[in-house]
Amino acid sequence: MQCDVRSIELAGEGKRRIEWADRSMPVLRQIRERFERERPLDGIRLGACLHVTTETANLARTLRAGGAQVLLCASNPLSTQDDVAASLVSDYGIPTFAIKGEDNDTYYRHINAVLDGKPQITMDDGADLVSVLHSERKDLLTHVIGGTEETTTGVIRLRSMATQGVLRYPIIAVNDAQTKHFFDNRYGTGQSTLDGIIRATNFLIAGMAVVVAGYGWCGRGVASRARGLGAQVIVTEVDPVRALEAAMDGFRVLPMSKAVAEADLIVTLTGNLHVLRREHFLAMKDGATIANSGHFNVEINLPELKELSVSVREARPFVDEYTLQGGQRVCVLGEGRLINLAAAEGHPASVMDMSFANQALCAEYMVQHATDLSPTVHSVPAEIDAMIARLKLAGMGLEIDQLTDEQSEYLDSWTMGTT
Amino acid sequence: MQCDVRSIELAGEGKRRIEWADRSMPVLRQIRERFERERPLDGIRLGACLHVTTETANLARTLRAGGAQVLLCASNPLSTQDDVAASLVSDYGIPTFAIKGEDNDTYYRHINAVLDGKPQITMDDGADLVSVLHSERKDLLTHVIGGTEETTTGVIRLRSMATQGVLRYPIIAVNDAQTKHFFDNRYGTGQSTLDGIIRATNFLIAGMAVVVAGYGWCGRGVASRARGLGAQVIVTEVDPVRALEAAMDGFRVLPMSKAVAEADLIVTLTGNLHVLRREHFLAMKDGATIANSGHFNVEINLPELKELSVSVREARPFVDEYTLQGGQRVCVLGEGRLINLAAAEGHPASVMDMSFANQALCAEYMVQHATDLSPTVHSVPAEIDAMIARLKLAGMGLEIDQLTDEQSEYLDSWTMGTT
Amino acid sequence: MQCDVRSIELAGEGKRRIEWADRSMPVLRQIRERFERERPLDGIRLGACLHVTTETANLARTLRAGGAQVLLCASNPLSTQDDVAASLVSDYGIPTFAIKGEDNDTYYRHINAVLDGKPQITMDDGADLVSVLHSERKDLLTHVIGGTEETTTGVIRLRSMATQGVLRYPIIAVNDAQTKHFFDNRYGTGQSTLDGIIRATNFLIAGMAVVVAGYGWCGRGVASRARGLGAQVIVTEVDPVRALEAAMDGFRVLPMSKAVAEADLIVTLTGNLHVLRREHFLAMKDGATIANSGHFNVEINLPELKELSVSVREARPFVDEYTLQGGQRVCVLGEGRLINLAAAEGHPASVMDMSFANQALCAEYMVQHATDLSPTVHSVPAEIDAMIARLKLAGMGLEIDQLTDEQSEYLDSWTMGTT
Amino acid sequence: MQCDVRSIELAGEGKRRIEWADRSMPVLRQIRERFERERPLDGIRLGACLHVTTETANLARTLRAGGAQVLLCASNPLSTQDDVAASLVSDYGIPTFAIKGEDNDTYYRHINAVLDGKPQITMDDGADLVSVLHSERKDLLTHVIGGTEETTTGVIRLRSMATQGVLRYPIIAVNDAQTKHFFDNRYGTGQSTLDGIIRATNFLIAGMAVVVAGYGWCGRGVASRARGLGAQVIVTEVDPVRALEAAMDGFRVLPMSKAVAEADLIVTLTGNLHVLRREHFLAMKDGATIANSGHFNVEINLPELKELSVSVREARPFVDEYTLQGGQRVCVLGEGRLINLAAAEGHPASVMDMSFANQALCAEYMVQHATDLSPTVHSVPAEIDAMIARLKLAGMGLEIDQLTDEQSEYLDSWTMGTT
Repeated sequence: MQCDVRSIELAGEGKRRIEWADRSMPVLRQIRERFERERPLDGIRLGACLHVTTETANLARTLRAGGAQVLLCASNPLSTQDDVAASLVSDYGIPTFAIKGEDNDTYYRHINAVLDGKPQITMDDGADLVSVLHSERKDLLTHVIGGTEETTTGVIRLRSMATQGVLRYPIIAVNDAQTKHFFDNRYGTGQSTLDGIIRATNFLIAGMAVVVAGYGWCGRGVASRARGLGAQVIVTEVDPVRALEAAMDGFRVLPMSKAVAEADLIVTLTGNLHVLRREHFLAMKDGATIANSGHFNVEINLPELKELSVSVREARPFVDEYTLQGGQRVCVLGEGRLINLAAAEGHPASVMDMSFANQALCAEYMVQHATDLSPTVHSVPAEIDAMIARLKLAGMGLEIDQLTDEQSEYLDSWTMGTT
Repeated sequence: MQCDVRSIELAGEGKRRIEWADRSMPVLRQIRERFERERPLDGIRLGACLHVTTETANLARTLRAGGAQVLLCASNPLSTQDDVAASLVSDYGIPTFAIKGEDNDTYYRHINAVLDGKPQITMDDGADLVSVLHSERKDLLTHVIGGTEETTTGVIRLRSMATQGVLRYPIIAVNDAQTKHFFDNRYGTGQSTLDGIIRATNFLIAGMAVVVAGYGWCGRGVASRARGLGAQVIVTEVDPVRALEAAMDGFRVLPMSKAVAEADLIVTLTGNLHVLRREHFLAMKDGATIANSGHFNVEINLPELKELSVSVREARPFVDEYTLQGGQRVCVLGEGRLINLAAAEGHPASVMDMSFANQALCAEYMVQHATDLSPTVHSVPAEIDAMIARLKLAGMGLEIDQLTDEQSEYLDSWTMGTT
Repeated sequence: MQCDVRSIELAGEGKRRIEWADRSMPVLRQIRERFERERPLDGIRLGACLHVTTETANLARTLRAGGAQVLLCASNPLSTQDDVAASLVSDYGIPTFAIKGEDNDTYYRHINAVLDGKPQITMDDGADLVSVLHSERKDLLTHVIGGTEETTTGVIRLRSMATQGVLRYPIIAVNDAQTKHFFDNRYGTGQSTLDGIIRATNFLIAGMAVVVAGYGWCGRGVASRARGLGAQVIVTEVDPVRALEAAMDGFRVLPMSKAVAEADLIVTLTGNLHVLRREHFLAMKDGATIANSGHFNVEINLPELKELSVSVREARPFVDEYTLQGGQRVCVLGEGRLINLAAAEGHPASVMDMSFANQALCAEYMVQHATDLSPTVHSVPAEIDAMIARLKLAGMGLEIDQLTDEQSEYLDSWTMGTT
Repeated sequence: MQCDVRSIELAGEGKRRIEWADRSMPVLRQIRERFERERPLDGIRLGACLHVTTETANLARTLRAGGAQVLLCASNPLSTQDDVAASLVSDYGIPTFAIKGEDNDTYYRHINAVLDGKPQITMDDGADLVSVLHSERKDLLTHVIGGTEETTTGVIRLRSMATQGVLRYPIIAVNDAQTKHFFDNRYGTGQSTLDGIIRATNFLIAGMAVVVAGYGWCGRGVASRARGLGAQVIVTEVDPVRALEAAMDGFRVLPMSKAVAEADLIVTLTGNLHVLRREHFLAMKDGATIANSGHFNVEINLPELKELSVSVREARPFVDEYTLQGGQRVCVLGEGRLINLAAAEGHPASVMDMSFANQALCAEYMVQHATDLSPTVHSVPAEIDAMIARLKLAGMGLEIDQLTDEQSEYLDSWTMGTT
């Protein structure tokens, strides 16, 4: 089998961890069982560019159970779990191209390896696969019937492509499902970002001044968890409505130029570039620590930081200490890449359960409906969203109320007013 | 001037309180100053059915400053502040028809008094005005060019009217503005509901088991504030996605039939009817206290509770104690009407500032654009929403970041990927 | 019967509210039932100087059920509930001297009226009764066998008296009971202080910058509740350990001189004087609002504020607006007196249940043990504390674990180490 | 040099991590600088039994800078960081006897190796060193002048020894310092326990039902952090006052027999044994996960769990899955040993800074004052506590208020009352 992984010998540990994650993924498991019976993806070639983690492995197993021929590469050079990649190849028969810490060339070579499989469906996380397909590998576009996209950043890119008339096939924005971004972005990113930072630094969060750049779904997750761990949290935003929400949620709201002067720790989650740049580095306190949990490693302008520095050294794994010309030190975590994947294990399985249930069901939906869909960005069908929520509640052992007939009727009427 | 208020002598206290509220309403104040200069509503007859509070008074002043002829009645029999009604009449020259505690006949007589003014624009809160207009007063529909609606419940009714083809003119759903429902429903209802309950009961919330029925914007506000005051909060829901959110926000999620058995206090905010009914009353602990903060007084089935009871007495102002046949007591607050308006002062001025800025600007928009709009429910224009957010931030003295040119460009591009 | 109350006609409403409070006071109720049978205070003359609220009324009933002859005056000129005072006199036969808003002369005349009853036991809240007794009324000291003191401030004064050798009889510091200061100071003051502020102002707390001066038990209660309502909280302290705790609890810690410049609302709870003074008033933002929830009205230096001001007016009940020479306005709530009693109903009954159970049981203890006690400040006996906690848990329907025999033994041994 | 460590080659990584921790330990660093100048421990033999972590290394460096001859062993078989042990030996010249995962015999052999150094001062964490000294190595007692003890569990054992008249020399209970147990037990244990659990399991804490056994300083830290991460937290207690506090802090309070049936995760921090035992294992849900963060591995009765099980397997590092006879699975983390040390890095440096500053200053105090102290358990002198708090505030860049002269005077007076 074609593949490029660190070491196939890591497969044992990988398999064990994949199975552990599976215990927290009851929704995906139920879908896999149905897929095994129904084979809705039979013979479909599916190219996936995702973080190669235990949770992704369970998605890949599910797609394969549905009959798909899956090829997998990493959607971030630092996020691969090498034991999982090994197990995918040796235990689950899925051609995988991903090595933790791979360089940029290897990263794109792996994307091309997946594209070489002539995918009919693309499953992307950040739109790098789609982007290469629409620039260097246009010849392969004829094979593709549709795709899915996992993350906010990718959806923004795809919308931009659609607006510019560049996008050539329909893509479902999995990120926009309620059962995805309400949960994965908020609770998943919230916890795992702090987890990554703590593993990298062993900092006590209580009592720290933590700046969270961006109050989108991810940012509010991180702000909430940082507060839950005892930090004094400051939020920066460019959107006035979100800034107001942050203020009324009890956070201080400051422009970044003022926030940096008070920060012990700064985390960026904006989906934008150069959120931290020259002017900010120069205004930081000695010892300030910065991390990124947005999709791409562009939120911190590392080239500018390097220019300003007289030396760089690894102070601890995942911690690079830059010393500026004035002697002041700035610590960058995980090279400015997604810190939850670089220094921890990414999102917990329990939350990826829903995100990846959306992926699996949207792949099935695409096979059935691609021909009806225009080459633009589509929402996850509402019935898929609701079904996943119900399966998840059941998996958590939670019961909820049902509308009575009288109540359903009331919601549809307008004549009953104040009495 | 035509009016029906408790006592005109209360005007002095009302005026003082209206001015106090005005201090926390910088957005509306700036709009009022512009309206005085520009008179965008000159000569427009505007019929408003709103909670007659200090904040509404400042909205009415603003509409009048813009040139409108405003007539005002209450949108809830218990929510009128009699001193404010008096001051509106005597200090601000606004015909007002509202008496706290008015009976159902008077309530609807007041609505008809406003309709008698042949409004061109309706400004509603709960859609009672629109509902009467479309049933008993259809003759007046010819005068109307458009309207606005303040609350979730009203929007649901209007959507139902539009779906059924009954709605005869365009209405803007002010409730759907981000600067409205994100703030007023969450922070306003959150705080003021607890405030009303505490004033009615003087309960210590810490240590209580509090059940919140409904995890919409209002419900999550109340759940969050109850937890912030030390309660152990249980959420009930009919929507699986919201139920999952509640669980991941750390709340217990139970069906109502199980929740009632543990509850010290139950608050309904569902927009639906009979959320608490016979089966629930019978399962409550002795001394359980129930309140409603949804728009209409139908969420608690009081007729059923009366049937089950051997006696009812007022235990304290706003507290009716029902004794069931088994001897067990249930206390109902504020007769099951909106407890924040019944027992406290409704939403704080600071949050109504944004909601009513939306009302004023949507009235202006309607005058300019009504002829272009179909007779259905419309969203608040995005530019109004953003402008209000910016004015509010300025009013709170908060500064935020601006996108750099490079960043705006990045958001519009799709070619820059992982590096 | 001797008494001085606002109007005896208010008794009906007072009685109803006293009975309502009694429902949330199961511990005191059980003690009252035992006292009725056992009459442990038979014939004892007891002079009480306490906030005259519904909860105090239930304490007075309990003491009287135990056989005591109780005389009652107010421990704060603003904290009396006039309907309760009336009911105490007319329904419960307790001579009461207390009128809400009484002037300073009347306040001390009422204290003297209680002392005229030649108390054998004093029950004080702030040590004003004890202080008058030890200065102007020394002749009465021969009657007194012992006393109790309710609050932190009173205990500090009494300790100072004991240290200086002035105190002439034993006093039990009820405030030091775990079942008192852990609960009443933290949860009671926390909620009721915010309650008083909201009633006085109708402010939305979410999004406000709230400064809490003092991080003792009361201060941390207020800080926690303000955060729970969405405020951005800043703490000021003079004690380094408490300041560290505040920081690690996630609050900003600033010296007052810096905090005032950011504050929308400032609350003092330090037990010290002139926490807010000239330098702070001058540095406040226009419209800043200040309140006190410490025992005495000395924490805000109002005479200095008056000197700095060109005018003062009542902007709303309980809100005095001072305009400084520079035009900047400062609003003082409740004349700088305990805001929870001035503008709201004081501590909820549920928490006073434990505090006053301590009072009742300590009065009984004093009758039995006064002769064995030196004339100094004594702790509440541990067995009283534990008994109250157990009764309260039962009253709340909560069950806890019991140590097994094996576990009790383990706690007493030292030989079992790491295995 | 005498030593027993995993591999001396790990020293490089250990040194780098020790230096990283030092950056968050400004208080200890200042003490070390003074010790280097003043040499207050010159020639003193000091035997330390502590968790061998980066923070402990910085304490050892400080003691050595003060002139002491330090020997070090582990206070828990699982808590040693092997790279740190290596660095202590090779970079800092401190004889160290500690290997992560050492068996029970080795553990006690290492304690004896430290005792072989004939310590004059013992520095203990859990009282194993003192316990061996007072049983098997009584001959060495003549050398000892005094000691210190780090943890709650150790202090309980020592108090029991003192009560039974067994303790032979004075020991300072470092744990009782405010700057120790307020911070280390609450914020340190709180964060690091969750950290250990997340590293071991990659669980999403949000939405889990988490049972915290014990609401002491450590337990409330864990309960608070679990809630901060979105868990629904249940507390179990044997002490009625603590149980009440937990309830009023908003937690559910249940006896363990009921709590286990709802628990997804259970953490014990009681300082007692067999908190989880046969009856509880049998009542757990399938897949329930249990961990201990109390000092000793006796809180979970593992022998009973083994008896009940048909199989045990390692599901993931630090996760042992027991399958009971009924097929239900229970996962035990870190073999029931302190999970924050077993699966994570123990307390963050920032909080150990204060705990170990107490250790260093108490060792100095003991050298100066041991002859004046009786052979019992002593408190940390108040001036040491206050000095550490002030140094820490300075290290965090925080400024606080100072009492004015007028205020100091006021606190000492009793004559100024209500005005």
